[in-house]
Amino acid sequence: MSKRLVFVTGNANKLKEVKEILSDGGHPIEIDSHSLDSKYHGRHPQIPEIQGTTQEVAKDKCRRAAELTGSACITEDTALCYAALNGLPGPYVKYFMQEVGHEGLNNLLVGFPTKAAWALCTFAYSSGPGSEPIIFEGRTDGSIVPARGSKVFGWDAVFEPNGTGLTYAEMPKEQKNKLSHRYKALEKLRAHLQSLPSET
Amino acid sequence: MSKRLVFVTGNANKLKEVKEILSDGGHPIEIDSHSLDSKYHGRHPQIPEIQGTTQEVAKDKCRRAAELTGSACITEDTALCYAALNGLPGPYVKYFMQEVGHEGLNNLLVGFPTKAAWALCTFAYSSGPGSEPIIFEGRTDGSIVPARGSKVFGWDAVFEPNGTGLTYAEMPKEQKNKLSHRYKALEKLRAHLQSLPSET
Repeated sequence: MSKRLVFVTGNANKLKEVKEILSDGGHPIEIDSHSLDSKYHGRHPQIPEIQGTTQEVAKDKCRRAAELTGSACITEDTALCYAALNGLPGPYVKYFMQEVGHEGLNNLLVGFPTKAAWALCTFAYSSGPGSEPIIFEGRTDGSIVPARGSKVFGWDAVFEPNGTGLTYAEMPKEQKNKLSHRYKALEKLRAHLQSLPSET
Repeated sequence: MSKRLVFVTGNANKLKEVKEILSDGGHPIEIDSHSLDSKYHGRHPQIPEIQGTTQEVAKDKCRRAAELTGSACITEDTALCYAALNGLPGPYVKYFMQEVGHEGLNNLLVGFPTKAAWALCTFAYSSGPGSEPIIFEGRTDGSIVPARGSKVFGWDAVFEPNGTGLTYAEMPKEQKNKLSHRYKALEKLRAHLQSLPSET
């Protein structure tokens, strides 16, 4: 099997962060990137995301990415889950962010008693075509608040992790990295990748 | 090409209604059904629905259904689109109905100034494998109201078409059939199918 590991993303910042975190601890992992990712703005993604739970969405995308690239692949999916909505909008939050913005993400909850929410990051890893993807999840609990901090990165400005008093968008990068749903999922993925027998 | 036309549904009532409407006007159309449909409760549908606009979801499903069955196919997709949410939840309404019910579908709008909504039905028709699906849409405008009438059929009890004073769930079947988003889409599909040259 090829030693090449492909991270399926069109986002250069994500690639950089993933490379850094996965290479932590003195075991560098070689990663290429491939832009097959399903983007809301790109109307004809090469791998459309399916509807379903975050796990189903992630596994399906990773499975297809491995088939398309012929390589070991990792994919990433993010969801924002409202307790009042039993986990919705979940994987569909990107459409809500796009259509109603930060204010709308708050307004959805006006009629409900709790603003509790959790951010969920799902990395999927497939060792190659035909190999069932393995899921690594990271979850951070918090609540939905009126936007504070930089508004450039998705819904970061309206999500305040419990006990921090700050939204993701207000936090220094180092603070966010240590408690984010993304970091927690990546740590699990890193441990898994570093436990694999190295190829010589 | 086979004369067989397959309606992709696991729902016997839908099949019956589609058969009746499509055979209106003295031009019977032979329809089989095939249960490949993506159901929320069935965790492993044979054709997962993709994320995207209702048109993208419908075309993708119809294209795959034609490939899987080797036949001319029709598929159906339904969306409930809130004006305040720029058309969301749209194709994802089934998940919201499942997770928060009729009350939740109302509560989502408490923080927004308009309860206006439209019901959208999308039939897709492919003449066979490799043939690009054609879309037939029916739209009915109305508003989201507290549930009235029978609560057994999806979100019918919370959708009141404009000018009727009744929810879908309160209407006699004949009244609903003449103004429903579903009927409007089916009428367009019927006209198209009946305009095709018959095979002798």
